[in-house]
Amino acid sequence: MNEDTIRELLQAIQDGALTPEKALQQLKKLPYENLEFARIDHHRSLRSGLSEVIYCRGKSVEQLKGIVTQMLNAQGNVLGTHLLQDQYLGLKEALPENHQYNNTSKTLVIQQKDTSSKAGIVLVASAGTSDIPVAEEAAVTARFFGSQTQTLFDVGVAGIHRLFDKMDVLHKARVVIVVAGMDGALPSVVGGLVDKPVIAVPTSVGYGAAFGGVSALLAMLNSCSPGLATMNIDNGFGAGCLAHKINLLGEISDPQ
Amino acid sequence: MNEDTIRELLQAIQDGALTPEKALQQLKKLPYENLEFARIDHHRSLRSGLSEVIYCRGKSVEQLKGIVTQMLNAQGNVLGTHLLQDQYLGLKEALPENHQYNNTSKTLVIQQKDTSSKAGIVLVASAGTSDIPVAEEAAVTARFFGSQTQTLFDVGVAGIHRLFDKMDVLHKARVVIVVAGMDGALPSVVGGLVDKPVIAVPTSVGYGAAFGGVSALLAMLNSCSPGLATMNIDNGFGAGCLAHKINLLGEISDPQ
Amino acid sequence: MNEDTIRELLQAIQDGALTPEKALQQLKKLPYENLEFARIDHHRSLRSGLSEVIYCRGKSVEQLKGIVTQMLNAQGNVLGTHLLQDQYLGLKEALPENHQYNNTSKTLVIQQKDTSSKAGIVLVASAGTSDIPVAEEAAVTARFFGSQTQTLFDVGVAGIHRLFDKMDVLHKARVVIVVAGMDGALPSVVGGLVDKPVIAVPTSVGYGAAFGGVSALLAMLNSCSPGLATMNIDNGFGAGCLAHKINLLGEISDPQ
Amino acid sequence: MNEDTIRELLQAIQDGALTPEKALQQLKKLPYENLEFARIDHHRSLRSGLSEVIYCRGKSVEQLKGIVTQMLNAQGNVLGTHLLQDQYLGLKEALPENHQYNNTSKTLVIQQKDTSSKAGIVLVASAGTSDIPVAEEAAVTARFFGSQTQTLFDVGVAGIHRLFDKMDVLHKARVVIVVAGMDGALPSVVGGLVDKPVIAVPTSVGYGAAFGGVSALLAMLNSCSPGLATMNIDNGFGAGCLAHKINLLGEISDPQ
Amino acid sequence: MNEDTIRELLQAIQDGALTPEKALQQLKKLPYENLEFARIDHHRSLRSGLSEVIYCRGKSVEQLKGIVTQMLNAQGNVLGTHLLQDQYLGLKEALPENHQYNNTSKTLVIQQKDTSSKAGIVLVASAGTSDIPVAEEAAVTARFFGSQTQTLFDVGVAGIHRLFDKMDVLHKARVVIVVAGMDGALPSVVGGLVDKPVIAVPTSVGYGAAFGGVSALLAMLNSCSPGLATMNIDNGFGAGCLAHKINLLGEISDPQ
Amino acid sequence: MNEDTIRELLQAIQDGALTPEKALQQLKKLPYENLEFARIDHHRSLRSGLSEVIYCRGKSVEQLKGIVTQMLNAQGNVLGTHLLQDQYLGLKEALPENHQYNNTSKTLVIQQKDTSSKAGIVLVASAGTSDIPVAEEAAVTARFFGSQTQTLFDVGVAGIHRLFDKMDVLHKARVVIVVAGMDGALPSVVGGLVDKPVIAVPTSVGYGAAFGGVSALLAMLNSCSPGLATMNIDNGFGAGCLAHKINLLGEISDPQ
Amino acid sequence: MNEDTIRELLQAIQDGALTPEKALQQLKKLPYENLEFARIDHHRSLRSGLSEVIYCRGKSVEQLKGIVTQMLNAQGNVLGTHLLQDQYLGLKEALPENHQYNNTSKTLVIQQKDTSSKAGIVLVASAGTSDIPVAEEAAVTARFFGSQTQTLFDVGVAGIHRLFDKMDVLHKARVVIVVAGMDGALPSVVGGLVDKPVIAVPTSVGYGAAFGGVSALLAMLNSCSPGLATMNIDNGFGAGCLAHKINLLGEISDPQ
Amino acid sequence: MNEDTIRELLQAIQDGALTPEKALQQLKKLPYENLEFARIDHHRSLRSGLSEVIYCRGKSVEQLKGIVTQMLNAQGNVLGTHLLQDQYLGLKEALPENHQYNNTSKTLVIQQKDTSSKAGIVLVASAGTSDIPVAEEAAVTARFFGSQTQTLFDVGVAGIHRLFDKMDVLHKARVVIVVAGMDGALPSVVGGLVDKPVIAVPTSVGYGAAFGGVSALLAMLNSCSPGLATMNIDNGFGAGCLAHKINLLGEISDPQ
Repeated sequence: MNEDTIRELLQAIQDGALTPEKALQQLKKLPYENLEFARIDHHRSLRSGLSEVIYCRGKSVEQLKGIVTQMLNAQGNVLGTHLLQDQYLGLKEALPENHQYNNTSKTLVIQQKDTSSKAGIVLVASAGTSDIPVAEEAAVTARFFGSQTQTLFDVGVAGIHRLFDKMDVLHKARVVIVVAGMDGALPSVVGGLVDKPVIAVPTSVGYGAAFGGVSALLAMLNSCSPGLATMNIDNGFGAGCLAHKINLLGEISDPQ
Repeated sequence: MNEDTIRELLQAIQDGALTPEKALQQLKKLPYENLEFARIDHHRSLRSGLSEVIYCRGKSVEQLKGIVTQMLNAQGNVLGTHLLQDQYLGLKEALPENHQYNNTSKTLVIQQKDTSSKAGIVLVASAGTSDIPVAEEAAVTARFFGSQTQTLFDVGVAGIHRLFDKMDVLHKARVVIVVAGMDGALPSVVGGLVDKPVIAVPTSVGYGAAFGGVSALLAMLNSCSPGLATMNIDNGFGAGCLAHKINLLGEISDPQ
Repeated sequence: MNEDTIRELLQAIQDGALTPEKALQQLKKLPYENLEFARIDHHRSLRSGLSEVIYCRGKSVEQLKGIVTQMLNAQGNVLGTHLLQDQYLGLKEALPENHQYNNTSKTLVIQQKDTSSKAGIVLVASAGTSDIPVAEEAAVTARFFGSQTQTLFDVGVAGIHRLFDKMDVLHKARVVIVVAGMDGALPSVVGGLVDKPVIAVPTSVGYGAAFGGVSALLAMLNSCSPGLATMNIDNGFGAGCLAHKINLLGEISDPQ
Repeated sequence: MNEDTIRELLQAIQDGALTPEKALQQLKKLPYENLEFARIDHHRSLRSGLSEVIYCRGKSVEQLKGIVTQMLNAQGNVLGTHLLQDQYLGLKEALPENHQYNNTSKTLVIQQKDTSSKAGIVLVASAGTSDIPVAEEAAVTARFFGSQTQTLFDVGVAGIHRLFDKMDVLHKARVVIVVAGMDGALPSVVGGLVDKPVIAVPTSVGYGAAFGGVSALLAMLNSCSPGLATMNIDNGFGAGCLAHKINLLGEISDPQ
Repeated sequence: MNEDTIRELLQAIQDGALTPEKALQQLKKLPYENLEFARIDHHRSLRSGLSEVIYCRGKSVEQLKGIVTQMLNAQGNVLGTHLLQDQYLGLKEALPENHQYNNTSKTLVIQQKDTSSKAGIVLVASAGTSDIPVAEEAAVTARFFGSQTQTLFDVGVAGIHRLFDKMDVLHKARVVIVVAGMDGALPSVVGGLVDKPVIAVPTSVGYGAAFGGVSALLAMLNSCSPGLATMNIDNGFGAGCLAHKINLLGEISDPQ
Repeated sequence: MNEDTIRELLQAIQDGALTPEKALQQLKKLPYENLEFARIDHHRSLRSGLSEVIYCRGKSVEQLKGIVTQMLNAQGNVLGTHLLQDQYLGLKEALPENHQYNNTSKTLVIQQKDTSSKAGIVLVASAGTSDIPVAEEAAVTARFFGSQTQTLFDVGVAGIHRLFDKMDVLHKARVVIVVAGMDGALPSVVGGLVDKPVIAVPTSVGYGAAFGGVSALLAMLNSCSPGLATMNIDNGFGAGCLAHKINLLGEISDPQ
Repeated sequence: MNEDTIRELLQAIQDGALTPEKALQQLKKLPYENLEFARIDHHRSLRSGLSEVIYCRGKSVEQLKGIVTQMLNAQGNVLGTHLLQDQYLGLKEALPENHQYNNTSKTLVIQQKDTSSKAGIVLVASAGTSDIPVAEEAAVTARFFGSQTQTLFDVGVAGIHRLFDKMDVLHKARVVIVVAGMDGALPSVVGGLVDKPVIAVPTSVGYGAAFGGVSALLAMLNSCSPGLATMNIDNGFGAGCLAHKINLLGEISDPQ
Repeated sequence: MNEDTIRELLQAIQDGALTPEKALQQLKKLPYENLEFARIDHHRSLRSGLSEVIYCRGKSVEQLKGIVTQMLNAQGNVLGTHLLQDQYLGLKEALPENHQYNNTSKTLVIQQKDTSSKAGIVLVASAGTSDIPVAEEAAVTARFFGSQTQTLFDVGVAGIHRLFDKMDVLHKARVVIVVAGMDGALPSVVGGLVDKPVIAVPTSVGYGAAFGGVSALLAMLNSCSPGLATMNIDNGFGAGCLAHKINLLGEISDPQ
């Protein structure tokens, strides 16, 4: 047992059988596998709230029940993503009453500990109505971790005036997530209008040469607005995580 | 000789050696290759002015001299595209004085017959300054065939107000060509602002995941503005051709 | 309220509290977000008829009922695309009697206001019988907006004489839409035969290295006939929109 | 003239020829093109400092001289990216003495106005030595806009202990930019170690199936560490922009 | 009526109302569309037997019944490809007794006229057992048009001795079709062993980076054995067509 | 009959009808097809144990019964891969009692002859829980052929400490198989930690720009850890084969 | 020595030391590596004339001299492909006088033995003038091996009448090679016009989305004319090889 | 200073100021960044000999001189890969006399300490002569680390008998590296012939649809011979590394 090895080493110092200097030399030679104590600080990830998430796709109802129960005991709060309605219906009875299932974003939220912070607003904008599920996943995720969120749907560039009508909303946000499929043009336009970090999420909305979201993804990676943070296709969850991390940085400073 | 064959056949009818019915049967049996007269109406393509063009890339100065001379004799007007400056300098002495070489678009124009029409304005807009060579090729091409042209450069979506400042220019045009690289977002925005045909030309401007223009091309094919006419990457010439064809349709009707 | 802000400003002029010049200066400084009135002219898009369309894929029958009802009230005419037969059967009872459902193109048309114009003919040609659904979508769309249409199916290049037998039909059209899958060769041939704008629509017809229409799409983008207007794969709707826009330009001028 | 139109309208109110209400109705109907005053707030982009940048690739020395001179007059500070040494040598004599040319990142910096802020540290880590030019571009960019930066080169995952030796550096940063080519694995590891926003920049370093950086790009988009902000291939500039925007959000709040 | 137009023209010569020369001038002006008689020789394609084929995928039983009946009347022989068993069962009662349905290759053959020729043997070899459906389609097709066929299945390069045991079979064939998925290596080996034309057919057999047959397709296009005739993925029908065309060329000459 | 041909030749020597030299000359001229005896040593592949495997996907229960029965008679041991549960349930009654079906890896093992060797340990590590089916297939395969195996699941790089906690397990293995989807980063890290051969298996786990495993595949091919042995996407079976082949080489030498 | 081993075996029969039956058993056991005599019939490949070819790209002049000299001694005839003019000028002095260098197709032919056959005509058609180098390579290759060839250049589908004027040439050929870049449409048209084998060669002519010939390649693989034999991009040599192989099959039978 | 921290801790135990148990608790809480001693065992990688390599591409002569000098001092042996002849000529004077530069594989070897082991033979086979540079890089690499190597060039599958003539060489090897471009078929054939680990290296040899080695890479990943270890395109170095690692495993056990 590794811990025991170290304990014996330390005991030998106390016993006078080993000088501290020699013990140090031995510690230095220990390979990683014996350093059971050399763990990454788990509290760190708990603090940022980004770890308690279940990716539900492909898991059976029984598996989900087990994981959810264990998580509730361990940390009180649970976020499940990609939870199909059928899975949810099977799982429902095992959930505490105050759970929230969002059938659009396919997310499950159980929030028994308060994570709400004084952090600013994460605005989630989407180009078309078909992009809403991904946009909702981003919003639910950011909210779960403690951000305030606001949404602005169906403001795609083919009717760009719909966006301009909402410039005040854009400017109040501390981080903006822009979700778009097809030509993926909306984040470029938003990136030119605001000076806050913009996170671009391509969706698989579209057909033919949209290639399941590749079209939108490439547009975002090649945006003429410098510094867009691009996510994987349909990855609303990742966008929510990043937005919250950024939001936290400004938590105290931004009076607004 | 095919023509002679037919002539003999017809003569035989006149001579009474053949009934019309039997001649008809023989005509029916003629394979395509003997129907020298069954040509496509060449005057048609001349009329639209789309045929007298030299693609100069990869041709030697000597080859170019030969082709230009022959074309000048045949039709008076010449458009050369993709003519590098070095090729041009070698070719220059052999050209009539009134030629115009455009070193940005790499085009050569010799216009000895007037092709100007009463057709409306073809507006050529470009997203960035690096897109100008392709935009210029489109404008030169449309003008060569007889359209009026106007240009609007550097109005990309990262600074969308630059476009809105020129809405009057947009609305005066009968056809709009929009040239953009990188995210290829500009045509989608323009397509949502005007009700005239919009031709989208992706350029190879960009790097990395721009993939030599693929990013912009896909964005245009997947535009959320319905009905964009998309061209091949860097194909300003094709855009000019199409714009002029469309422009001609409205030649008489549009009083403006 | 923004409108109120402006109203007060104008009132102040009337009241003599503000000179027109000073009011002008204040108006200039208003950011976009306060310009609620600065909308794009909606009448423009209504005039071209390109906005009243429902993309039905993925929508529930209930959602469709709501949208159709709202549209009928607002504008009288409705075009629904990608409406599967099952969706239609659920929706049917809620539709006015004079609706037309096309099971080949999966389109629904309700036309309570006359949009027919004196515009010329949009010819829709298809290479194979499997391309007909996309071709029909293009034709239905152009007709819905007010164009006359004509169709020419199964005239692919493997039996090119079938096309040549119909040259008169080709030449009567003001715009030609050419729909083809597999090798996507037909638009190139048509583009060499007519001097009118040609719109090329690749379809996902084919297998193996057709890659869901990529083969045909690339062929069209790289056509040796200059100036083809290429659409996204299977995008008959976009082709119909563009064809109608072009057609309108020639509405008055073309006696034919 | 648009401005005149508005002025006349306002004058008519003053003159009593028009009620404010009627003037308001007319204003609402004005299309965009008449709203010359409806400009986006330019000061906004100046404030974030992200606009005064010259992309030098492909520009002649003469062009560069012109642009630099104009920028120095307008704003005092200049950042040039992708400036090849040959371009720089031609340009050098026209530059003020206090310019800095970085031959690794191919950047030119002229900083005549102080932009330094109290913002935290942007850490730029790179996987291999070949990734340093892109990493340097990111660092120079963030510094130019006012961030503090620190660098950590050659800490790729094939010798992961090199990274662990520098955990303290990682944890002091407010934003981490991770630059990697080939397998693009480093950002995933870093993303699992820190709770700050991580920006991932793929480089074109590698050969064969690295496909000019596509391999690294895909790895980053698909990272098992949720919420990486991915940039285009070799886009150190974009990463620097985003990092600075994020850094600014925490400017006041982070005592550290 | 076009034919009538010509007839009248010819009659006018007979009547002396028109000189042959003038009639010739008029004929020259006739556009394609009036040359109803200028058809491609249909008998040519019938002679090679390559035209009477039904691609059954996606057709309803009713449609298939109609087409089969019409074909039987017109030409006596029918080949249907990609006919799923369910389609076949619905169609069965409408078929003549002597039809043959092959459930492996999904082909239907009705041969009421003898097409057997003295042409040599088309050998169809396949690499694995999963490639057999495509190989069978090739064999059925070649046989339908009149070739003799022989098959050699499961002789892939991972057990190359299986092929060498059958060298006599390889050498007796006049044309060899080689069907392979996965690495697509077999055609290269066969192409190095025989001096007869080799037709390579990639199949979609494989998974992961086989990309639905792309792996095998590329291997065949890049074969180190010069002169392989490559077909589309899974295109056994095309291979059968080509093999038979080649086979016919040697019909008389090859005593064997 | 080939064997007879040789026999007659040899008999002729015995009979004095042919000198050995002349017989040798004749033997040299024999083409491959007559060398029925020139078979590859089948015992070789049996010895390595890599040949008795059934790829079950797409085979009917009846086909599977036949193949399994034949294999059991011939060699006693059977490995079936990609055997879906439904196939297994149909097949079950025909199997000997001592069979083992693994519903995670979809493998069937019947081991009637002992193949266990003194070969070292093949360690199979997986990045995420979704990669376990592929990892299990690799482990089952290596074990079937006679290797000892150990598994280490869910040690992906986003929580790299989980791997470091198990360094002793890593170092005890003679070959390490690393299975990962998404960013495919784990094999690079492992390759930097151990000096034993590392086999990398990308999985199709992931979505969007994971492109069914391409992302992980490219990361592995471009690993910054030199000398990774990369397999096809999801090819756990291949990894097990290779690991066992490598393991066998060290069978005697490694005391451990 | 292997041959000696066999010789001893045979001698032992003659000596009565071994029965033929026992010798046969020993022969059967010989592994491949001892069967030095079991070579593939080299005369076969010489007979078809497809082996004496030098791929010159990347070879030094000295290397080329060595290879050419050796080949001339061995077989009299030499075909060199991809021989750049600079390589040729260095090589020239070492060549026999009767060599032919074709600067368009970059081929070198030295024909000291007559290979001309009575085989029919291989027709090589090309779509554009830029496709001629590849077309010429195909023609030179087929001629080198003994075929008659004819060429038909610049008959692309954008001016399809140019092809129809030459139908007699098309029909006289026994095999047709069709070379095309860009949209790759010509082979489909030719395949619909003739009943002889058609070989399609895509070229890298084009730009943008031509992707170096991929566009043309896909069009040919997906041709609506069944049974096209498709070659690799720019592979005129392969087309010439295949055409000659096919042509030979019809050598005697085709009186023409 | 971290080391000091630990030292103080240990001293405190000796001093009786801290119990061993409490010290252990404190050690456990130390984050990674303080564990300066927790390094990966560097001797491990030195022992396998895989670390002392310089990738020379893109490095200046001065940089190379510095690195080589430092490495010679540190470890005595140096392997440089991708060293162009020009770089070498500049570097030459700074090298010890016993260096070896291989102009085919572009490798530099300086071997001042003996690494030769009793490990078995690594056989490197290549399909074509153009694949030799990559094959040589593999052989040089394996030899540098201490393996014996043997080479077998130009044994591609188009003349498969060349391989069979060398079966004895194949069977003597303990590991086989197979290098091939174009169709990448050779590794599949070799994998079916030997029961030793086979490492497949695709090369960028080929043109057109070879796509710079993708064709060969895919063929190898999809090999019908199970368990090929595939490397990146042109990665001879990686293959040499892996082969040597595998070879070492069998070092003692294999008497041969």
